Amino acid sequence: MEHRDTIAAVATGSGGAIAVIRLSGPDAAAIAGGVFAAASGRPLEGERGYTLHYGAIRDEAGSTVDDVVVALYRAPRSYTGEDMVEISCHASPYIKSEIMRLLGSHGARQAGPGEFTVRAFLAGKMDLAQAEAVADMIAAEGRAAHALASNQLRGSYSDAFGTLRAQLLELVSLLELELDFGEEDVEFADRSRLQQTMEAIGTRIAGLGRSFRLGNTIRGGVPVAIAGRPNVGKSTLLNTLLGDDRAMVSDIAGTTRDVIEDTVNLDGVTFRFIDTAGIRRTDDVLEGMGIERTFDRIARAAVVLYLVDPTETGVTSRGAAGNSIEKPVGTAGTEQAAGAGRKDTMPDAAMIAETVGELGLREEQQCAIVVNKADRVTDADALARWADELKQFSGREVIVLSARQGMNIGGLIRFLVGTVETEKVYSGDPIVANTRHHEALTRAGEALARAQAGLRDGLAGDLLAQDIRQVLHHLGEITGEITTDDVLGEIFSKFCVGK
Amino acid sequence: MEHRDTIAAVATGSGGAIAVIRLSGPDAAAIAGGVFAAASGRPLEGERGYTLHYGAIRDEAGSTVDDVVVALYRAPRSYTGEDMVEISCHASPYIKSEIMRLLGSHGARQAGPGEFTVRAFLAGKMDLAQAEAVADMIAAEGRAAHALASNQLRGSYSDAFGTLRAQLLELVSLLELELDFGEEDVEFADRSRLQQTMEAIGTRIAGLGRSFRLGNTIRGGVPVAIAGRPNVGKSTLLNTLLGDDRAMVSDIAGTTRDVIEDTVNLDGVTFRFIDTAGIRRTDDVLEGMGIERTFDRIARAAVVLYLVDPTETGVTSRGAAGNSIEKPVGTAGTEQAAGAGRKDTMPDAAMIAETVGELGLREEQQCAIVVNKADRVTDADALARWADELKQFSGREVIVLSARQGMNIGGLIRFLVGTVETEKVYSGDPIVANTRHHEALTRAGEALARAQAGLRDGLAGDLLAQDIRQVLHHLGEITGEITTDDVLGEIFSKFCVGK
Repeated sequence: MEHRDTIAAVATGSGGAIAVIRLSGPDAAAIAGGVFAAASGRPLEGERGYTLHYGAIRDEAGSTVDDVVVALYRAPRSYTGEDMVEISCHASPYIKSEIMRLLGSHGARQAGPGEFTVRAFLAGKMDLAQAEAVADMIAAEGRAAHALASNQLRGSYSDAFGTLRAQLLELVSLLELELDFGEEDVEFADRSRLQQTMEAIGTRIAGLGRSFRLGNTIRGGVPVAIAGRPNVGKSTLLNTLLGDDRAMVSDIAGTTRDVIEDTVNLDGVTFRFIDTAGIRRTDDVLEGMGIERTFDRIARAAVVLYLVDPTETGVTSRGAAGNSIEKPVGTAGTEQAAGAGRKDTMPDAAMIAETVGELGLREEQQCAIVVNKADRVTDADALARWADELKQFSGREVIVLSARQGMNIGGLIRFLVGTVETEKVYSGDPIVANTRHHEALTRAGEALARAQAGLRDGLAGDLLAQDIRQVLHHLGEITGEITTDDVLGEIFSKFCVGK
Repeated sequence: MEHRDTIAAVATGSGGAIAVIRLSGPDAAAIAGGVFAAASGRPLEGERGYTLHYGAIRDEAGSTVDDVVVALYRAPRSYTGEDMVEISCHASPYIKSEIMRLLGSHGARQAGPGEFTVRAFLAGKMDLAQAEAVADMIAAEGRAAHALASNQLRGSYSDAFGTLRAQLLELVSLLELELDFGEEDVEFADRSRLQQTMEAIGTRIAGLGRSFRLGNTIRGGVPVAIAGRPNVGKSTLLNTLLGDDRAMVSDIAGTTRDVIEDTVNLDGVTFRFIDTAGIRRTDDVLEGMGIERTFDRIARAAVVLYLVDPTETGVTSRGAAGNSIEKPVGTAGTEQAAGAGRKDTMPDAAMIAETVGELGLREEQQCAIVVNKADRVTDADALARWADELKQFSGREVIVLSARQGMNIGGLIRFLVGTVETEKVYSGDPIVANTRHHEALTRAGEALARAQAGLRDGLAGDLLAQDIRQVLHHLGEITGEITTDDVLGEIFSKFCVGK
């Protein structure tokens, strides 16, 4: 597919000292040459290969707009495979818009989002999965997300699908050969070998599908909900992890009304921390809404940290005094019985374990009980015993720390990073991190299951071949062998302009 | 001055598709070469001149961090005059920080603000005024501000000071020659010619000093105060000029409590529009503060637009009914007398003119009365007559428009742009736009005045020479012949990192 027009866009972000304006298309050198006067006096159009030119951008009146450096990449040795020019100028709003205006008046068209990458894809410089990886690469904040995008960009990810497609194509060609000899009732494809191969492919597709949970989590950031009763220090913990004070912290119970969210990189993995309204019974409508949202967020989190305050001795005594507003959610019935046997001043471990149980976590959700404010407990042995109790009653990991003092934050980080199988990411195994790919993979798996069922039912080769062609179709959607303008439009509309 | 170390910084802004990381210093090629593997396999260190290299940045483990293009500029043919490298990478937060980390581990130091430009200055690539122009160039939003910075960067501005310095140096050398012949009472410097030259230089310095008002206004944006009684449509006018709804607009009088400010480019000139609280007498403390600020802003504006509403017929009738809260500032005494003779329903022109007079504008402040809501007046002739009256009574330009309908906004823009002598800017005349330069120029003028007084008083040549050396000193501060680390630190601390 050949592009007739030449596109231009500012490729760098806002602010900064220098900006880069890119051009791609058959007239890139001519258009840039029309506004650029090289200090050497040589015209851009005469240059070959990769070259770098110092000079000035001149406007219609011959006035210098800016002193620039122009990089010229001759087709096909460029990102898009077309002639490309990159103009490095001063990053002023005026200069950028004036150069874009001049390029426009010389025939360049403002590029749409991702249009350079669309051209690279259409020129066969990369497949669709690689093109999508470009956007992920740019968005990557941590080492793990970068590694995912980087593997996908470098093609090892696409290779996995290529291998599957090659195996499936072999099956199809054997089955379709039978059609040519339809009358003769020949089976070129050994049915039991066919079954084995399909099973192996099915296992591979299922495995790739399962990798999506890890991939998606790493690509979007691991959602971590920080839950717990009011005033146990959720905002303080979040702030300690964030390293600054973005959440509102106060001593008044129930201050955090809104679910706020922020991301932080821990050991290369991006975590999306969700600070939540305190969990307690309340008639305050606003807080009530906050609590509903809290449970909603907890349900969607991959990791839940349930914070407790070992110094919060009032829980049982206030309970005994009948202050029902302060009762933890769902523990009203068990409270007095549990409280009766307590000897030290810490909250009842069994009760906390029960509350954690009532969060309704699914099996795949990881959870730790975080004992905060450890610095305020003088009896370290008692605290350790209590932490053990919490662990026994809840069956969850227990991390003792002080968010305010920064005590054992490392232990929490180790737990968090441990919830993510980073070794799989860094090993370069193909991991599905893209919803579009996951959907295509799911449909491919369904089509394969139909083919497998057909095989068991002794379906004719041509019908089997049809199902397997469906599997091929869906796998082809991932790497872009099969695509439509709509799909491309949808994918690249999410790109930034200039890429 | 030679730098031993090599500095590195991300030179592009946040976001975007690609980012550029710069290196400058003796080890730029070696450090970049330590993290970069060229696709060609050739080492960076061997290259000469300007060259462009495609390849990959590799980390310690040999993993590819990103595919990049590296531009190498060999000293002295670079911005800083040192060896420089520019690495174009994907604009991901991870990639940028990872490449910076790798460069650091290979011996590069994170550059401070403006440190590349400091090196260019110290290497004699540009003088201090040119270095300062780099920052102005990057900040320029409109054509006029860009033209100022561009002239200054290109050296025509510095040339003006160079010429003055050359003339002064000639005077000094003649005067100092007399010292060598001190005993003989020789006057090499003809006193009347000396006087003429000094006068010419004084005129030039004064002219440059006067240009500061224009230069500063263009560099910082022309401050325009939009004033007027509540509900005459100040916010609507601002929004029309801004092209979107950044100010709060409402029909409730006194909604705009805070002085808000926004910039817009009109015909290449940046205007800083200041929307103000309505001017009226009030007991509302908040509004009272707003009105104080309004007068403060009006005093600091270069242009004042006084908005009036021709349909606001209630002004006189409410005044007659004794509603003192609604009286315009300072018009209480004249109101009834002026209102008595009115035949049509428009507010009293003489009264409005008086209010404008009481704004206390200085001579150099430009002002127009803007008749808004023209679309709501059915009798066009009456409106025209009223506008004429306003013009006669106030002696100010009157612009009739409708902010809501976008009617005659062009007329307002012509008035605004007309308040700025843009032809002086575009002619390339040296215009002082920098407070530091203006201060040095003022001190130079004072020293020259002392020398001129000394000359009139028949002061000895050596004493005259001393005063003229002071003039030279202050002019030298502008272009950086005379400078200190403190001055450099002060200037470059305002630069962005990466420039």
